[in-house]
Amino acid sequence: MNQTITPLDHEKVFRDPVHNHIYIRYQVILDLINTTEVQRLRRIHQLGTTSFTFHGAEHSRFSHSLGVYEIARRISENFNKNYPSKVPGDGLWDANEELVTLAAALLHDVGHGAYSHTFEHLFNTNHEKITQEIITSPDTEVNKVLRTVSDDFPDKVASVINKTYPNKQVVAMISSQIDADRMDYLLRDAYNTGVKYGTFDLDRILEVMRPYQDGIYFEMDGMHAVEDYLMSRFQMYQQVYFHPVSRSMEVILNRLLLRAKEIFTNTTQVNAQTPFILLPFFKGEFNLNEYLKLDDGVLETYFNTWKSHPDKDLRELATRFLDRKPLKSVAYDEDTAYLLPKLKELISEAGFNPKYYTATDTNFDLPYDAYRPNKKPIQLVQHDGSLQELSTVSPIVNAISNKSTGDQRFFFPKDVIIPDQNINLFQSKFDEFNKYIKNGKLITPKEK
Amino acid sequence: MNQTITPLDHEKVFRDPVHNHIYIRYQVILDLINTTEVQRLRRIHQLGTTSFTFHGAEHSRFSHSLGVYEIARRISENFNKNYPSKVPGDGLWDANEELVTLAAALLHDVGHGAYSHTFEHLFNTNHEKITQEIITSPDTEVNKVLRTVSDDFPDKVASVINKTYPNKQVVAMISSQIDADRMDYLLRDAYNTGVKYGTFDLDRILEVMRPYQDGIYFEMDGMHAVEDYLMSRFQMYQQVYFHPVSRSMEVILNRLLLRAKEIFTNTTQVNAQTPFILLPFFKGEFNLNEYLKLDDGVLETYFNTWKSHPDKDLRELATRFLDRKPLKSVAYDEDTAYLLPKLKELISEAGFNPKYYTATDTNFDLPYDAYRPNKKPIQLVQHDGSLQELSTVSPIVNAISNKSTGDQRFFFPKDVIIPDQNINLFQSKFDEFNKYIKNGKLITPKEK
Amino acid sequence: MNQTITPLDHEKVFRDPVHNHIYIRYQVILDLINTTEVQRLRRIHQLGTTSFTFHGAEHSRFSHSLGVYEIARRISENFNKNYPSKVPGDGLWDANEELVTLAAALLHDVGHGAYSHTFEHLFNTNHEKITQEIITSPDTEVNKVLRTVSDDFPDKVASVINKTYPNKQVVAMISSQIDADRMDYLLRDAYNTGVKYGTFDLDRILEVMRPYQDGIYFEMDGMHAVEDYLMSRFQMYQQVYFHPVSRSMEVILNRLLLRAKEIFTNTTQVNAQTPFILLPFFKGEFNLNEYLKLDDGVLETYFNTWKSHPDKDLRELATRFLDRKPLKSVAYDEDTAYLLPKLKELISEAGFNPKYYTATDTNFDLPYDAYRPNKKPIQLVQHDGSLQELSTVSPIVNAISNKSTGDQRFFFPKDVIIPDQNINLFQSKFDEFNKYIKNGKLITPKEK
Amino acid sequence: MNQTITPLDHEKVFRDPVHNHIYIRYQVILDLINTTEVQRLRRIHQLGTTSFTFHGAEHSRFSHSLGVYEIARRISENFNKNYPSKVPGDGLWDANEELVTLAAALLHDVGHGAYSHTFEHLFNTNHEKITQEIITSPDTEVNKVLRTVSDDFPDKVASVINKTYPNKQVVAMISSQIDADRMDYLLRDAYNTGVKYGTFDLDRILEVMRPYQDGIYFEMDGMHAVEDYLMSRFQMYQQVYFHPVSRSMEVILNRLLLRAKEIFTNTTQVNAQTPFILLPFFKGEFNLNEYLKLDDGVLETYFNTWKSHPDKDLRELATRFLDRKPLKSVAYDEDTAYLLPKLKELISEAGFNPKYYTATDTNFDLPYDAYRPNKKPIQLVQHDGSLQELSTVSPIVNAISNKSTGDQRFFFPKDVIIPDQNINLFQSKFDEFNKYIKNGKLITPKEK
Repeated sequence: MNQTITPLDHEKVFRDPVHNHIYIRYQVILDLINTTEVQRLRRIHQLGTTSFTFHGAEHSRFSHSLGVYEIARRISENFNKNYPSKVPGDGLWDANEELVTLAAALLHDVGHGAYSHTFEHLFNTNHEKITQEIITSPDTEVNKVLRTVSDDFPDKVASVINKTYPNKQVVAMISSQIDADRMDYLLRDAYNTGVKYGTFDLDRILEVMRPYQDGIYFEMDGMHAVEDYLMSRFQMYQQVYFHPVSRSMEVILNRLLLRAKEIFTNTTQVNAQTPFILLPFFKGEFNLNEYLKLDDGVLETYFNTWKSHPDKDLRELATRFLDRKPLKSVAYDEDTAYLLPKLKELISEAGFNPKYYTATDTNFDLPYDAYRPNKKPIQLVQHDGSLQELSTVSPIVNAISNKSTGDQRFFFPKDVIIPDQNINLFQSKFDEFNKYIKNGKLITPKEK
Repeated sequence: MNQTITPLDHEKVFRDPVHNHIYIRYQVILDLINTTEVQRLRRIHQLGTTSFTFHGAEHSRFSHSLGVYEIARRISENFNKNYPSKVPGDGLWDANEELVTLAAALLHDVGHGAYSHTFEHLFNTNHEKITQEIITSPDTEVNKVLRTVSDDFPDKVASVINKTYPNKQVVAMISSQIDADRMDYLLRDAYNTGVKYGTFDLDRILEVMRPYQDGIYFEMDGMHAVEDYLMSRFQMYQQVYFHPVSRSMEVILNRLLLRAKEIFTNTTQVNAQTPFILLPFFKGEFNLNEYLKLDDGVLETYFNTWKSHPDKDLRELATRFLDRKPLKSVAYDEDTAYLLPKLKELISEAGFNPKYYTATDTNFDLPYDAYRPNKKPIQLVQHDGSLQELSTVSPIVNAISNKSTGDQRFFFPKDVIIPDQNINLFQSKFDEFNKYIKNGKLITPKEK
Repeated sequence: MNQTITPLDHEKVFRDPVHNHIYIRYQVILDLINTTEVQRLRRIHQLGTTSFTFHGAEHSRFSHSLGVYEIARRISENFNKNYPSKVPGDGLWDANEELVTLAAALLHDVGHGAYSHTFEHLFNTNHEKITQEIITSPDTEVNKVLRTVSDDFPDKVASVINKTYPNKQVVAMISSQIDADRMDYLLRDAYNTGVKYGTFDLDRILEVMRPYQDGIYFEMDGMHAVEDYLMSRFQMYQQVYFHPVSRSMEVILNRLLLRAKEIFTNTTQVNAQTPFILLPFFKGEFNLNEYLKLDDGVLETYFNTWKSHPDKDLRELATRFLDRKPLKSVAYDEDTAYLLPKLKELISEAGFNPKYYTATDTNFDLPYDAYRPNKKPIQLVQHDGSLQELSTVSPIVNAISNKSTGDQRFFFPKDVIIPDQNINLFQSKFDEFNKYIKNGKLITPKEK
Repeated sequence: MNQTITPLDHEKVFRDPVHNHIYIRYQVILDLINTTEVQRLRRIHQLGTTSFTFHGAEHSRFSHSLGVYEIARRISENFNKNYPSKVPGDGLWDANEELVTLAAALLHDVGHGAYSHTFEHLFNTNHEKITQEIITSPDTEVNKVLRTVSDDFPDKVASVINKTYPNKQVVAMISSQIDADRMDYLLRDAYNTGVKYGTFDLDRILEVMRPYQDGIYFEMDGMHAVEDYLMSRFQMYQQVYFHPVSRSMEVILNRLLLRAKEIFTNTTQVNAQTPFILLPFFKGEFNLNEYLKLDDGVLETYFNTWKSHPDKDLRELATRFLDRKPLKSVAYDEDTAYLLPKLKELISEAGFNPKYYTATDTNFDLPYDAYRPNKKPIQLVQHDGSLQELSTVSPIVNAISNKSTGDQRFFFPKDVIIPDQNINLFQSKFDEFNKYIKNGKLITPKEK
């Protein structure tokens, strides 16, 4: 039998702060962890600019990937024990699906790059596509390891992540409204930020999960545990992921990369400030190998060198990013959006180029979606086997179902509202600007 | 009155995973946190290569610095409340010492560089000296902020860290056998690694701390809490800080930087692989500004580029470091040290240059030191005011007092004992090598 | 100055599993804790029959009372530090209110009896009235201690608990929709049951609390922490406090005491089974002294003796209670209530007296009440000082506001639906009974 | 096949604060939990008088029994998975031993009575013998349930607890220096007291446990986890179990029961104060049925009635116990023991009968015993399979091995050293008494 898929004599154990231990029972999983592509995730923060607001959020996508693996492993172990398939197609769990599940869980984010959110937007990279490529391209270490299982194993793993894998239970474990990915990141992000809202009872949820023909559902008795998970998710979005200060740091990052692209795309200079690794992206022509060189440290290293670059905006933006000088922001809505041009004008008059020092940003989340066409709702199973969609029995979930929450914000330099005491040349601008803001929101100022 | 030292109207609160919240009451502390030198600590991991063994250990020196500040703040708050000085020299706590204490706590590690342990050894940098320089040099932001308190404030803060500050209570809070620094790093490292041994009852220890003329002592009732702290410290050293895999990654880092220095010190080439920021260190001529550009990401970015460098050893060592290919190791002692040349010979015959692929490393810790000349022992105070040195009343502490624990290890490529199945050219070497190892220790093989 | 209200030289510290430490700074508080009336609370479980479902819920009202005290102390300490009153009537916190607050917090439940919920209902005792009496009656130790502060101090403390005390901030700390009482019991009950839903971020809530003229409000920034507290409260009610098994044990307790009253009220026998301490309550004539003899152990001791009482129902009910033989239950509503007489008939036919072995019980909770006449809503204060009622800004809270949740259940012997295999005399009754139940709810059975 | 030992279709899950969940897979285990003898443990506190010092320590022997069961279950599950026996006598784990292990774990303390330590000493009851009797006597519910497995099952279970069962692995799980019993009580007592010293890494210890021919040993890699467990145990004894205040409450309990025996043994009166349930014990003639009526509430109910008994000492001691009026104490040793008669004389002169109001108490613990004849030492297994006794490789354990720690204390009324301000008739006695005490220890006073 294939050695990489024979269970190891002794489980290999990783110590993990969230799950306490992570158990590895297959050589192929160990080998995957040891590939250059997976190890690279150690150098990419899970939460990008969030650590500028919650300083503890310094954990990497590597730690998260192990966590997703571990949750998937626990689900599979539970299904093996309590719901083993007896006849093909009986809607129970087929132990042969374990390995593909574990591999997909571990690799689901392997294509992520540095500060993906911002980077992808600017440079048309796509971490999901790259994840697929890393898994299926014969040049990667990941692919080589996967092929030790079988020739079609890489494609199988890729199709799980791609949600086209035929076994819907496997797909649901990795990507659904309550999957191993989300459960790990909520717990891990909560643990590392120190925010308590993100915790929920993972053990209880795993206990009430059950496989069925079309995926995974939950026992009715576990409804409150699922409710609590959704509320945790809601709170994490509202309080952590959408935090205005982190978003303002993302705005700065965006403007900084934009300015860098303008400066370096056609540069021929080669010196200490040349962003060699970024050039292919500035030019819009990059290959997988070049992509895999990207990590947070690479970006920050260039930013570091740019702090003394001759271009004032590049220098200033790099400094703002590395030294954490966030922009301020106000919430606005459709009624007050008409004021933005006026505000940009004031900012420009105060000496800041609005192109680099202002931005609008919209963050909305749908905490739970009962009827989205391509995302299955969460189903509860009653004692008699009949199913009920979660929001029809939980008033709490019904309250947040299909309702997106979030805000639109306008970002601008703090200096505009809290002027440096020594430079009050623009005092009248500041005074005027401040008239438009009340309780953190944009308002139409009262006429005098 | 000076604005930066007036208490803020509203405390500023940072969320922290270890202390839950960190409270800032002075503008000057906020300003210090926002300096470029302190923000830089976000880009330096607290535990260097430890995260290669305990993947959760991804926290930075920035988080730790805030934590040390918070513990010092709590001690000071407690002393203000319960032991305020009434007459100068009464051995109680003088509230005027608060600000210098907090600043020193926050800044005590500000001079740390990337992977300090290895880097300092190779390039004669000294993070303690650089901490002093950052505080006292008029060119840094830190110094500018400190001078808003008073002209001599930077020197005062530096002298606390330097242990020459006249008030011994302040010095003891920042550096002694049970100080804010150690207490934070034990708790934080334990929290992030997920290892439970590092936890102890911080609240209880803070409660039984008391100021006296010559520093800080502990109420007799708190003896067990102090014991428990020392045991936690002991366990963290044995299990986390001295872990052979982390140490082997440090060995690789050392050899990699060594090889890089050989290659780049006199290079005149300027290309994508040139380590611009490192060159001053390779040449042994660097200034503070150059030092402050160093962080973990900078080193790793160069390593990244070196993975395709023409030099085989540089390439191989960079790959081993970034892709986590640790060396193996065995413990040895004075009785078996004589075998090392023989082992190196075998390794060389197996195709590895011993200069780059072997090393010896010694790690010893003195968990508690009752009689070290320049480190005060821990004193307990009885109900009648008399003092007793901890190890004289605690049999547990006595057992570990003045006894260093740790080991000496010899590092070598794993390939020597677990050969790649496809390359067994050197099988006889492997067999011979393995004869010298038993239960993880070097032994004199039995004659046949 | 009065010695009992002078701060102690050294705080007295109690170790507490929920708050870690409880700090006592006044002799009068220590003296109150040491009264016979407060010590008696050690012998009354906080959660009555809940430990029959969640075995960890074995904590007493004594522990809870200390916890409420500690939270009140922390609020007061925070207010003293950050919102001290400067001018009478400025809506800030008057430090002179501290002692009355702490005493009221500690004593708010001192009148609770054994299994209050059931006991009060049957015997017309009223723990709130008795709390007042314990505080104001000159015969109690509590009253004697309170009078060491001042002659009118007992009345002041009583009026806080009675909500008639003029300072509305003090009243709000002890009884409002988010007070020290509720916060402690949620955290403590969650801690002891092991249910995770009850936890919320106490530190954060304390931080955003602010005194104002009419009570206490919360900073807008803290909205999510308050939301989370309300959700925790909601979940604890749904999952712990309303658990059908605990309620069924309460039903048994009720029936047992009812039967005992029938038997013993006019008994003249004096033997090992005579419930001396209960007789005054059976007769409806009891004094405070007699009430203070009641505790959980007293009731259980009588039950213990009744396990061999000649009366079959008394014996059986005592056994069911002590040996935890819960009744089964089904939910019903107005549409299915008409079936209850039929079910009772079947139960009677199966050999159980419906008077003792069936019951209906309704449990509803209003998780948050925005407009209740005598309960103030939770107010949030914006940056400009204006107030907003919580449910108008939080969609989550709006979803649960003014909507009661809970259920009505019908309780009956388990034997009716899961017959003992050896006694199937009544099989046809069982079969019929089961037709009325589906997915835990009462249904109108389909006609065949 | 026997129904009670067939695995249940769905595991039954109990929520537990220490282990989160407790999993029940066999009907026979559920049935055992539901026996009257096991349910009775709900009414007996695990830690007796400790809750007078650590108020959170209100958990029962019932909760602990479930916890011991759960740890045994986890060990067995791990052994089933990783070390299943292939050939009888191969020293690996035989899955057929699971049920006897689980039953013994659950029942190991079933014979405990109220405040066992004190009660047994006075009345010659023996909880270990009674445990055996409950298991083997045909009259108990426990025995009836056990016999559903097989006729000899009760004897097997009893022999495990008795340590005579042939399979030494099973015996070691339930009683050895590191067994399920000790591990649960340390964790549970630490959790409920809120003391942090008692925690250790249970997961890690379970991971490194391995069965072998003669019992259970631990992998060398897990040495530090075992060390940490022993240190936790040491700290819990020093700080919790030996706490002088709890011991002084035990002294009061002892004196109270002593006085009650004197009064009631030959009483013929039958009234509200007659301790019916205790009489058989006072007379020294009791049967199992009478023993099983004892619980904490029964004792406290009698004490309650005795608070108004005509006998002054009975009244006073009952009040001291229920209202928590501990005695004071000082440590003494062989050098100062000669002073005790003198102190008793002073106490007598101050108006207290030394028979009821003084006592000596000795508490010593042997934290780890490397060479006790009938207790096996802890063995570590090296990579090559050879064993090493723990204290020979761990300097920490060596330090505490075979050394008992604890103290001898003399207990006396607090009034003797801190006289009531209104009654200073005996001031000279107090002054004299105080001369003998310094720093909590008895001393020979200096001659003037």
